[in-house]
Amino acid sequence: MSQYRVLIDANDEKGLVHKVSTIFYDYDLNILSNSEFVDKQSNKFFMRSVVDGNVDRDELINALIKVLPADASVKVITPKKKNIILMVTKEIHALGDILIRHEAGELEANIVAVISNYDNLESFVSKFNIPYVTISHEGLQRQEHENKVIEAINRFDAIDFIVLAKYMRILTPRFVETFENRIINIHHSFLPAFIGANPYKQAYDRGVKIIGATAHFVNNDLDEGPIIAQETIHVTHAYSWKDMQRAGKDVEKVVLSRALKLALEDRIFTYANRTVIF
Amino acid sequence: MSQYRVLIDANDEKGLVHKVSTIFYDYDLNILSNSEFVDKQSNKFFMRSVVDGNVDRDELINALIKVLPADASVKVITPKKKNIILMVTKEIHALGDILIRHEAGELEANIVAVISNYDNLESFVSKFNIPYVTISHEGLQRQEHENKVIEAINRFDAIDFIVLAKYMRILTPRFVETFENRIINIHHSFLPAFIGANPYKQAYDRGVKIIGATAHFVNNDLDEGPIIAQETIHVTHAYSWKDMQRAGKDVEKVVLSRALKLALEDRIFTYANRTVIF
Amino acid sequence: MSQYRVLIDANDEKGLVHKVSTIFYDYDLNILSNSEFVDKQSNKFFMRSVVDGNVDRDELINALIKVLPADASVKVITPKKKNIILMVTKEIHALGDILIRHEAGELEANIVAVISNYDNLESFVSKFNIPYVTISHEGLQRQEHENKVIEAINRFDAIDFIVLAKYMRILTPRFVETFENRIINIHHSFLPAFIGANPYKQAYDRGVKIIGATAHFVNNDLDEGPIIAQETIHVTHAYSWKDMQRAGKDVEKVVLSRALKLALEDRIFTYANRTVIF
Amino acid sequence: MSQYRVLIDANDEKGLVHKVSTIFYDYDLNILSNSEFVDKQSNKFFMRSVVDGNVDRDELINALIKVLPADASVKVITPKKKNIILMVTKEIHALGDILIRHEAGELEANIVAVISNYDNLESFVSKFNIPYVTISHEGLQRQEHENKVIEAINRFDAIDFIVLAKYMRILTPRFVETFENRIINIHHSFLPAFIGANPYKQAYDRGVKIIGATAHFVNNDLDEGPIIAQETIHVTHAYSWKDMQRAGKDVEKVVLSRALKLALEDRIFTYANRTVIF
Repeated sequence: MSQYRVLIDANDEKGLVHKVSTIFYDYDLNILSNSEFVDKQSNKFFMRSVVDGNVDRDELINALIKVLPADASVKVITPKKKNIILMVTKEIHALGDILIRHEAGELEANIVAVISNYDNLESFVSKFNIPYVTISHEGLQRQEHENKVIEAINRFDAIDFIVLAKYMRILTPRFVETFENRIINIHHSFLPAFIGANPYKQAYDRGVKIIGATAHFVNNDLDEGPIIAQETIHVTHAYSWKDMQRAGKDVEKVVLSRALKLALEDRIFTYANRTVIF
Repeated sequence: MSQYRVLIDANDEKGLVHKVSTIFYDYDLNILSNSEFVDKQSNKFFMRSVVDGNVDRDELINALIKVLPADASVKVITPKKKNIILMVTKEIHALGDILIRHEAGELEANIVAVISNYDNLESFVSKFNIPYVTISHEGLQRQEHENKVIEAINRFDAIDFIVLAKYMRILTPRFVETFENRIINIHHSFLPAFIGANPYKQAYDRGVKIIGATAHFVNNDLDEGPIIAQETIHVTHAYSWKDMQRAGKDVEKVVLSRALKLALEDRIFTYANRTVIF
Repeated sequence: MSQYRVLIDANDEKGLVHKVSTIFYDYDLNILSNSEFVDKQSNKFFMRSVVDGNVDRDELINALIKVLPADASVKVITPKKKNIILMVTKEIHALGDILIRHEAGELEANIVAVISNYDNLESFVSKFNIPYVTISHEGLQRQEHENKVIEAINRFDAIDFIVLAKYMRILTPRFVETFENRIINIHHSFLPAFIGANPYKQAYDRGVKIIGATAHFVNNDLDEGPIIAQETIHVTHAYSWKDMQRAGKDVEKVVLSRALKLALEDRIFTYANRTVIF
Repeated sequence: MSQYRVLIDANDEKGLVHKVSTIFYDYDLNILSNSEFVDKQSNKFFMRSVVDGNVDRDELINALIKVLPADASVKVITPKKKNIILMVTKEIHALGDILIRHEAGELEANIVAVISNYDNLESFVSKFNIPYVTISHEGLQRQEHENKVIEAINRFDAIDFIVLAKYMRILTPRFVETFENRIINIHHSFLPAFIGANPYKQAYDRGVKIIGATAHFVNNDLDEGPIIAQETIHVTHAYSWKDMQRAGKDVEKVVLSRALKLALEDRIFTYANRTVIF
């Protein structure tokens, strides 16, 4: 008995559910859960099914491809721990939340390494027996530094996701292309408000009554890319921007961990700078 | 071209989605949206599809019944305004919210009448050209009063839902059975906390930091039955129970209107004192 | 026995609370509630006290002015219904919510009139026996139209607040100056995200997972000015921008009514494009 | 220059703020923040001020006692790290959240020890260089076991708070009295709903749409005592009770950490099974 996550996206047309469910039926598969969505505006169809039964993965893929339109994307995934790398700068909260969840067995992930441009979190991370790689940016040009980071990442096998757990450096398009749709970032604001430097200071200056955080895939720069999860909390006039920053950390870690979990469970489709989340 | 909402629940078995989607495919129907859920614990399958195409309603029902197990419940509903009766006592907020939404065209409903045991909201309701029926309970025994209410309701044709928009009298089992799964109540607390009289007073006495409201179908008495929607808000030590009551009204009206909308759009299944909501 | 709301703001210095509370003590006043806040960054002190006792209003003001620094602003307000004008375009939800609250006696306000550039809400507003003034903008230049609106407002005595309950026209600086810090607007987005036209369309295009609304005083244009209240709700990929707009209405009305209530109860201080809210 | 937190509660009477602020003024103290609350129902007055200046702590206390009524409680606290003991059973999430915050320097606390009736979190806690004391309850009567726990606690000096971070054993009245108003518990439900064993199972069975968590002081048993903080999250029909339990952990840790922070900053007054929180 094998369990598979079947992910399909295609241009919408009549009969897609019928075709897929007929394959499941023919192979005598159990449907454990099933979600579909059609975006009428862009005429796109999305489907995620979790099935179990006695069928070879390749056979299932081939059967699905045969009945589905040529443009359809078909993925059949065997649930297993994904390899992730965490990148941080100096702050512990988002990193710590992921490490605790990992320790608790909540995440379908192997944390392969933590990479930072500073060494100040090394002793903390070492407690968890996770390799910590410091790649200082001091005295290096942006591209030079980033090349070293890419090299470090590539030294590890088959990285599924790179999680920017408050990594405070801007990434170049080259980096982003190298790991397309595999970089998850937490932005410390309710995007698209307060793009850019020190969003809490900006939020304070605007006198907002709510602050937030946004987890998203990175496609161009740190503030763009398909949004995965967002959350907000109320603040009052009594919050200085430092208070907002402190309170914001609690939202940041919640949102990043939520997004990571969705990614690890193969629940996210991306298209047109958007996500579909099942 | 007709649009239908297809609602199916059945004991779960392999192939249900396949069977239903095959019928849709055979009749050349467009699937506008599709939701499924299997409750593994009770082995129950639920499905709600919105389809359009050229098929007679009876024909579609028969085709579905033919392929589905004998125990399956199949409903094929043509979207149209449902007839509802609102019951109130003296408070305007929940009633008013529904009337404004009705006025704005937000609700798939005809408000056939408002029934109350007091006449104090009559002039308000009359502004909206909706019949207002006062059935005073003064000097009547509970059953006598309720019989008059049932009579009044039955004078109107084909009532789909009775909405207790802060109707503060206890209903007898007879009333509830007469309109089974068609009575929607708003309870002014986060059920099951603070069942019974004056929940805000109870909440104040317990020193809670959050209050809430619960919309549910009524099956036995005012505080039981499958929950449709709940919402909460924060309160502080500075709230007297009157303040809680005032703040609670905002939650009550939001929750009741949300539940009513779900009911009008045929999005609710009930089983085992629970709801499945698509 | 009179009740007063005492509102003081001043540059912060030692002894302000002492001086004010000594006056209250000397006049044998009861302090019903008391709130203070010091913004360290700008060195500003804010205080709102509700007191009752036997003292003449002018005498109390003079006593306070005498002990407080010359730059202090001192207001002693006798709680009473404030005169407000609502301005709308075509949508009923925010207007309706205020009218129902007014009907329920929740607002310390007389709704003196509703002014619109369309007549389509006239019959609705008339039900509440509130004057409805249609001032069409058709064929008029912006300034001409606005002059007519200002004239209409000035025909009513002593307007405390103008509430833009989804008034969809841009106001000129002249209008804003005429009613400075007395215009409350609801903006249909979580400001400062999605400033400008059709924020829900913008939000949809950005693929956000949360939408919101912002109530604020208007000082320059429709999207600026001190924020009074904000609220957000979650949306999913399944929301079209029309769905977001529909869901957003519920947030808009909640936020606007909350802001109006705060204003009517004299709970808002403004400074430096910010609000302090007690 | 010293900073003090001044906490006063007393039966309410005219002039209390005046008397306290006069003392602050006489000693030339700076008021950094100031909060007051009068519970009219019970006629109780609460005040928390943060002041700095050049005054001896004892002198300030004596000055305040002299002007305040005899029944008043006066505390003058020098901000410093408090000593806390964490008690756990087997779950890591609430404990982990506190340890990470401690590591980040967010908490005004020394974590003196972690005490558990199991040893399975020992290796985790040891990473943080915090003593871990296993006191197994196997083969012991409740009172015997608890005596050993009390002994273990008393071996450490001057414990300010005992934090039950998912300590799943019932405490006897003797334990509770020993550490009165110093035990903070997280209850894995929105109290007072679902008191007792396995609240998530209870919540599932009732078909709720919201679950929550409650942090409170323990005064009698695990489910009673003044509530400090509560939080809720939405769940759907698709949540099994195990899913609720998993989702609930995120709420539990947030609420417990929030409550602990309030306690460490001396922001909580308790009376009549309620809290006032500044």
